[in-house]
Amino acid sequence: MTTTVIIGGVAGGMSTATRLRRRDEDMEIIVLEASGYVSFANCGLPYHLSGTIEQRQSLLLQTPESLNSRFNLDVRVNTRATKIDRDAQTVTTDAGDTIAYDYLVLSPGATPVRPALSGIERALSLRTVEDLDAIKSAVEGAKKAAIIGGGFIGLEVAENLAHRGITTTIIEASPQIMGPLDPEMAAIVKKRLEDNGVVVLTNSAASEITETGVSLNDGTTIDTDVVIVAIGVKPASTLASEAGLEVGERGGIVVDDAMRTSDPRIFAVGDATQKRDAVNDEPTLVPLAQTANRHGRLVADVITGRDTAARGVLGTSVVGLFGLAAAAVGWNEKRARAEGRNVRTVYLHPSNHAGYYPGASQIHLKLVVDADTDAILGAQAIGEDGADKRIDVIATAMRARLTASDLADLELAYAPQFGSAKDPVNMAGFINDNIKNGERTVAYHEIEKYTEDGWQLVDVRTPAEYAKGTITEAVNIELDSLRDRIDELADEKALVFCQVGQRGHTAASLFANRGIEVANVGGGYLTWKFAQEA
Amino acid sequence: MTTTVIIGGVAGGMSTATRLRRRDEDMEIIVLEASGYVSFANCGLPYHLSGTIEQRQSLLLQTPESLNSRFNLDVRVNTRATKIDRDAQTVTTDAGDTIAYDYLVLSPGATPVRPALSGIERALSLRTVEDLDAIKSAVEGAKKAAIIGGGFIGLEVAENLAHRGITTTIIEASPQIMGPLDPEMAAIVKKRLEDNGVVVLTNSAASEITETGVSLNDGTTIDTDVVIVAIGVKPASTLASEAGLEVGERGGIVVDDAMRTSDPRIFAVGDATQKRDAVNDEPTLVPLAQTANRHGRLVADVITGRDTAARGVLGTSVVGLFGLAAAAVGWNEKRARAEGRNVRTVYLHPSNHAGYYPGASQIHLKLVVDADTDAILGAQAIGEDGADKRIDVIATAMRARLTASDLADLELAYAPQFGSAKDPVNMAGFINDNIKNGERTVAYHEIEKYTEDGWQLVDVRTPAEYAKGTITEAVNIELDSLRDRIDELADEKALVFCQVGQRGHTAASLFANRGIEVANVGGGYLTWKFAQEA
Repeated sequence: MTTTVIIGGVAGGMSTATRLRRRDEDMEIIVLEASGYVSFANCGLPYHLSGTIEQRQSLLLQTPESLNSRFNLDVRVNTRATKIDRDAQTVTTDAGDTIAYDYLVLSPGATPVRPALSGIERALSLRTVEDLDAIKSAVEGAKKAAIIGGGFIGLEVAENLAHRGITTTIIEASPQIMGPLDPEMAAIVKKRLEDNGVVVLTNSAASEITETGVSLNDGTTIDTDVVIVAIGVKPASTLASEAGLEVGERGGIVVDDAMRTSDPRIFAVGDATQKRDAVNDEPTLVPLAQTANRHGRLVADVITGRDTAARGVLGTSVVGLFGLAAAAVGWNEKRARAEGRNVRTVYLHPSNHAGYYPGASQIHLKLVVDADTDAILGAQAIGEDGADKRIDVIATAMRARLTASDLADLELAYAPQFGSAKDPVNMAGFINDNIKNGERTVAYHEIEKYTEDGWQLVDVRTPAEYAKGTITEAVNIELDSLRDRIDELADEKALVFCQVGQRGHTAASLFANRGIEVANVGGGYLTWKFAQEA
Repeated sequence: MTTTVIIGGVAGGMSTATRLRRRDEDMEIIVLEASGYVSFANCGLPYHLSGTIEQRQSLLLQTPESLNSRFNLDVRVNTRATKIDRDAQTVTTDAGDTIAYDYLVLSPGATPVRPALSGIERALSLRTVEDLDAIKSAVEGAKKAAIIGGGFIGLEVAENLAHRGITTTIIEASPQIMGPLDPEMAAIVKKRLEDNGVVVLTNSAASEITETGVSLNDGTTIDTDVVIVAIGVKPASTLASEAGLEVGERGGIVVDDAMRTSDPRIFAVGDATQKRDAVNDEPTLVPLAQTANRHGRLVADVITGRDTAARGVLGTSVVGLFGLAAAAVGWNEKRARAEGRNVRTVYLHPSNHAGYYPGASQIHLKLVVDADTDAILGAQAIGEDGADKRIDVIATAMRARLTASDLADLELAYAPQFGSAKDPVNMAGFINDNIKNGERTVAYHEIEKYTEDGWQLVDVRTPAEYAKGTITEAVNIELDSLRDRIDELADEKALVFCQVGQRGHTAASLFANRGIEVANVGGGYLTWKFAQEA
């Protein structure tokens, strides 16, 4: 009889285990899980803090018993694998067992990074059900909480503590929260948090955790009853590296496209592994549940003799915060620039569905394009409704290697409740196509360079919009009177903008057709405004 | 100076006009619109009947004046083109004008089909703002309405009249409403309509419209105050055919991929034109606003000298009815079978997002696959939330020629509010992959053939589920005890099913691994049940 031992019983490990059983009734399948729970809803944990997910029980999707009766799995919780003997093909556990394997699957996940701060032992982290229980009991009766780290988990915890009425402060060392987003996009999320009473401190590093608060590098102190640290995770690859398996620079277990480690009897999936970036095929870490689940299934197929391979990963993600969704896929602009790409950005702020149908809300969409190839490098979307849909569509386009201009042509379902006859994704494609075909477009961070170079900022919005605030030194010529007044600007180089970029595009076309040098500010005043708030 | 005349000032025509102006400031652009309104929200019209869209004004997105001031367009409403003289390159209007053109763009739309029934003059149709006004005034004070035709517009009107408190009956001649869906899927929509008080009569042809009602072929009469006919539309191609332009079998103006008619100076877009089906490249009619808008932009590009071409159309669509969305793309099973394809269907009924997060609702998803090539031929999704998203993702996959199995691999944004770690689209890919790799799957309509052939139906749901209703003659062996009881069925051929197909898949794997001939009912009891209600 073949025995497969799986270390880790959540997303990747349990997907492997159940799929293995479906494909092989006779295999012995042993799952070792260090925590007390398997197959729990780790992405749901923060929502139990507020009672949004009311019953703790509903986070526990399976038990060792239920997995045994349905899948004949030998699931051992509270059991930590302590050693892998690759020659003997055995795993030793902290229960003192030594288990022989034919195949070993490592899905131990990742562990929260805990900075070497004085008082760090006072800080809680959220990864397991046990962590949740500890936080739940710590916040009972608490009035103030400080969260070190403004990533997905930190922000989700912040939202849920705020829903409990706890005054919550996020302490983020970098200049922005939400690393997967670019700063001007992250500013939208920051504002939503602040509008809901969460204090967001960026460029703020914690220097010490005391009994009553968190001291910051700038000498101030945040009073708090509870400190939660959520500055990221690192692959739980110690066991693998101790066993001599190859581990990458950033700590991820190295696997090939069949998820096989440097030992052909040992596979690895999930947050502990190194992945291949879909954009440039370089090693990357993508600690996301969706990937872990898909790769878990794949490993089971490989072990049971199927020739199959994983693709590069895009890292598609979404987070919901106070009714706002922030979704992203692929690379952001920061990353694309760091990689030396010739970057084209496309900004737009369309409605999620036809504006004339009640309940429309705005989606802030950014596309990051390789200007040399028209390849989509990534996208970010933020909005109350429909942001996730647009990112899923773009993720599918990226997977299929459609170009940014191809987005113009997608046939997306339209009825006034669900979209627009020209969907936001189509619009992104149109704008990209316009820029690609010569419409000069200036990003918010380039405006200063242009004005210093003598370009005249022209705000083509209505006088009422202009009066509420504009970009410094802009003159106002409303689009609808531009045709009559354009001669006023005949000797200028015109840097036009409107609220979101669309009227600016029409204005820019008019200037260009009249032979006046012109550029349009991408995403208009709104993108510029967000950037100011970043 | 170049003059372009555009016949029709709504989706396709107005997209052409505004894009033309952006690309050419000097062109004379004349838009002739037969109705009194241009650029109106035709997809929004039904929603003004209920007051969901409260202000009639909000349906009127542009006026001739606003289009003139912004785009310098010469827009003439209430002006019908009556003749095209191709040799002279002129269009004659009912106002007595003869307008010379360099380019002519036909975007006259489609007209409602009005059956040759006695009393048909009593029936109203909905296409224009004027039609809306007429219906609005007819339903004022009405208690009962009959709608002939159960397609998109008929159903949308039905919903909005029901919201007004009008007792509404849909009279549909074919065996099902919602032609783009297969019957077992349409049954879900029918039930939602009925649950909201709309009477749905299928297989019911109207034979006469009297002053007080609609007589049906079966001799019964539906009493009604108002009759609306919405059995479909036909391309408004008379003007084109009278001018000797080539028109297809089903009445659509024939165009090439640059939207050029058989006369190189004349283009056509929108509902009046014949399109190319993306699945098989054959001529088709797809009267959808999204396509009209995209093609309008394309025509402007072509006229202004850009080499570009339209792709085949998928006909992606969605309709919202009483909180339920029904979306579809590509071919349905009926169509695929009629075309002689070797059809594989994939059914699933997953939650729109993680079940443990509050507010999850079910999506009913069907994939139609070419079993010979694994090509996605089409898909249908119905649900309260997220159905449109899944169809948009699949539409994007189809556009990019991803296979059905490729859906397993898509990286879609996951957080518990928005999806599942294994998204419904991934699940569709997994199921397809399982079937493709040999898991025998039986469609609801094949069950009888199997049981007649001696297969034993095995319901693997819980006894409680079984007690509430099962497929005739099924025995009940709950999945979790199947491993112990499977020997009871050792001499059988087992046709297993559960509620939605997932436990059935696990059960089928177990049977197969034990060497027992087995098949799983696709979509489980639920799909079978829907089919019974169709």
